[in-house]
Amino acid sequence: MEPRHGQGLIDQERLWSDLMTLGAIGGTPAGGSMRGALSPADREGRALFSHWAIEAGLSLRADRIGNLFARREGRDPQAAPVMIGSHLDTQLPGGRFDGVLGVLAGLAVCRALDRAGIVTRRPIEVVDWTNEEGARFQPGVMGSAVYTGALDLDEALARQDPQGISVAQALHQTGTAGTAPVPGRIPHSYLELHIEQGPELDTRGKTIGMVTTSSAMCSGYATIRGANGHTQTLAMSRRRNALAGAARLVLAIEEIGAGLEPAGMVSASVLENWPNNRVNIPHLSTLSWAVVGFDPALRNAAVARIEAAAADIARETGLEIEIDHRHYREPCHFDDALIARGMARAAARGLPAMTLPTLTAHDALSFTALCPTALIFVPCKDGVSHSEAEWCRPEDAARGAEILLDLACEAADAP
Amino acid sequence: MEPRHGQGLIDQERLWSDLMTLGAIGGTPAGGSMRGALSPADREGRALFSHWAIEAGLSLRADRIGNLFARREGRDPQAAPVMIGSHLDTQLPGGRFDGVLGVLAGLAVCRALDRAGIVTRRPIEVVDWTNEEGARFQPGVMGSAVYTGALDLDEALARQDPQGISVAQALHQTGTAGTAPVPGRIPHSYLELHIEQGPELDTRGKTIGMVTTSSAMCSGYATIRGANGHTQTLAMSRRRNALAGAARLVLAIEEIGAGLEPAGMVSASVLENWPNNRVNIPHLSTLSWAVVGFDPALRNAAVARIEAAAADIARETGLEIEIDHRHYREPCHFDDALIARGMARAAARGLPAMTLPTLTAHDALSFTALCPTALIFVPCKDGVSHSEAEWCRPEDAARGAEILLDLACEAADAP
Ligand SMILES: [Zn+2]
Ligand SMILES: [Zn+2]
Repeated sequence: MEPRHGQGLIDQERLWSDLMTLGAIGGTPAGGSMRGALSPADREGRALFSHWAIEAGLSLRADRIGNLFARREGRDPQAAPVMIGSHLDTQLPGGRFDGVLGVLAGLAVCRALDRAGIVTRRPIEVVDWTNEEGARFQPGVMGSAVYTGALDLDEALARQDPQGISVAQALHQTGTAGTAPVPGRIPHSYLELHIEQGPELDTRGKTIGMVTTSSAMCSGYATIRGANGHTQTLAMSRRRNALAGAARLVLAIEEIGAGLEPAGMVSASVLENWPNNRVNIPHLSTLSWAVVGFDPALRNAAVARIEAAAADIARETGLEIEIDHRHYREPCHFDDALIARGMARAAARGLPAMTLPTLTAHDALSFTALCPTALIFVPCKDGVSHSEAEWCRPEDAARGAEILLDLACEAADAP
Repeated sequence: MEPRHGQGLIDQERLWSDLMTLGAIGGTPAGGSMRGALSPADREGRALFSHWAIEAGLSLRADRIGNLFARREGRDPQAAPVMIGSHLDTQLPGGRFDGVLGVLAGLAVCRALDRAGIVTRRPIEVVDWTNEEGARFQPGVMGSAVYTGALDLDEALARQDPQGISVAQALHQTGTAGTAPVPGRIPHSYLELHIEQGPELDTRGKTIGMVTTSSAMCSGYATIRGANGHTQTLAMSRRRNALAGAARLVLAIEEIGAGLEPAGMVSASVLENWPNNRVNIPHLSTLSWAVVGFDPALRNAAVARIEAAAADIARETGLEIEIDHRHYREPCHFDDALIARGMARAAARGLPAMTLPTLTAHDALSFTALCPTALIFVPCKDGVSHSEAEWCRPEDAARGAEILLDLACEAADAP
């Protein structure tokens, strides 16, 4: 924060204690958290955030997909707000920092402004986006996509979890939805602080990463169809075993991934096998696949190799293999002026910083095309995230929040 | 049936109509049946069998594991009975014949005796054994194993289905358990009619198969442990992907199976993958495997090859792979006199017949060490079973029931 904003630095101890207190909601024995989107634990996490927001003098509203906004009023209430957002939902289970840090750092920014006696011209809104993780309901970054208009509200509400509970039902069960319309108002600027989820900052000893661009991605499913038969009577040579086809495809995908390294990664991590019992030869398997990397052309080439591998396996085995539900995500570019400003503020604060791209998706991606958007990374230990072992140092969390504070102050007083 | 037993042949139309009526309980759109052991549909199937049994003048009792006995009294009520048994539960889903034919053919035998005015010396008991399939509760052939003392009652009662419902709870929910003690009385002889579940009879145009011996089997699980990581950030070369290890093992098992052919089969048909989502690298996979064949030495060699393949994969990938829960089943031998008698009766009736071994397990296996035991096969179309497409010709079902009648009459009048 620059001199004109006073000395309201981030209260590192309070931020840390908030992270630990919220992480204990849905806390797992291994030290992680399990707050699936719109679960009772997620509701409890939101309730604690709401309590802290009211304590800090913020006003709350929720929109129809359950995004929760805590607003610090500005001198000009009509001005488009500066948004600071991330998410309180976790993987199943996940860690204590992915998402949570960005929301609680937003609160920490508001408290720092209070301590410094600063009222900004623009309002500041701290947002918890619904279902960023996509662990319970597909797709992820759901709330921010509905807010920005990239995803239709009714389509999102109809999505179901593996138990057949829809987003609409889960919103109702948890009392999470509000009345604010979606898509919502485009903010003046959008800022997000997040742990890196990769090893670059930790490996290079950097405290701050200003994200330049996001990855190209393509994901989909392979459906492998064979023929039923009794595992104890049908001769090996007469079988059309869908699981064996899926196994070949898993290994082909691993090999395609090894060939893409270091330009990207290819993963096949979800396998469903049917009927998955001891007596029937598997005759229906589905396998997820995803390609991530920075070069869309290399991404496309890897997708083409997966399709070719599937065709080869089908031809060699007599199985039917269909590749479908291809979902493409193109690279997004973060705001150059905000990146430069973040690097400058890190330098002024004496923090080692670097620019870097992000391989993972974040709520911030939805805003890059709409308003100046910044994504600030702080290191996570060994690059481990989506894990109960995920870890961020207290001082790194606070330093990240300070850069967030700097960018928010400047944006909130921009004309 | 020989002249001294009169002309009481099997009523083919009634047997067929019984099969279709019972198959419609839990009937599936594809023409199969879904009556998981101790499910509401299984209860309904048992109720219909009970109704028909009472209609035929039989008396009913159930034992503590839910085995259901329909008894046709003999001239000597103290004499050990002749048992005719099989099962009304199905795979999920299964067909209309596997198990059901053996139970309903037992009823058909009793009706034929009634029509011929025959009262045998020994009682005849037609039995529906609980949970033969093992599809809902492991292990299969549960009821007959508890009856013969091969499986402890309390151990069986404690077994749980995938939803955590125990056999004891399911017996209670469906009102299936009775008070008759287990283990039960060893019968004079045990007879079972079943579809073959393999292609031999159908391929060779035989109507009757007298089973000589059962297969050697060994089954178990492989547990593959890797390391967690983010699918979009962890470099391919740093991953320890449990699913990739499971895929290698699936293919190794297929290859071992191809090498064993035609002496047996090796299957890996159940795969569970954890956490099975798009963002985490799979770090725990379990894979079932099973070896079946007639030569225990070849069976043992195949198991050793699976263990060696698992060790190789573990060494090459850095994954931990554990092979455990090995369950061995040794070959059982059916009664030579009953086999000869069945072949002779088939010849006398002009039915093409052969002796053959069985690869699959049946309730009859539990009795081979205890009393003279026969297993009679009739053809199923293309050898397909454990499938909604499973099919048995009406005339083959009736001819099999006639051989069952012949053997039952003779045994029930034996000294
Ligand atoms: Zn996140
Ligand atoms: Zn059966």
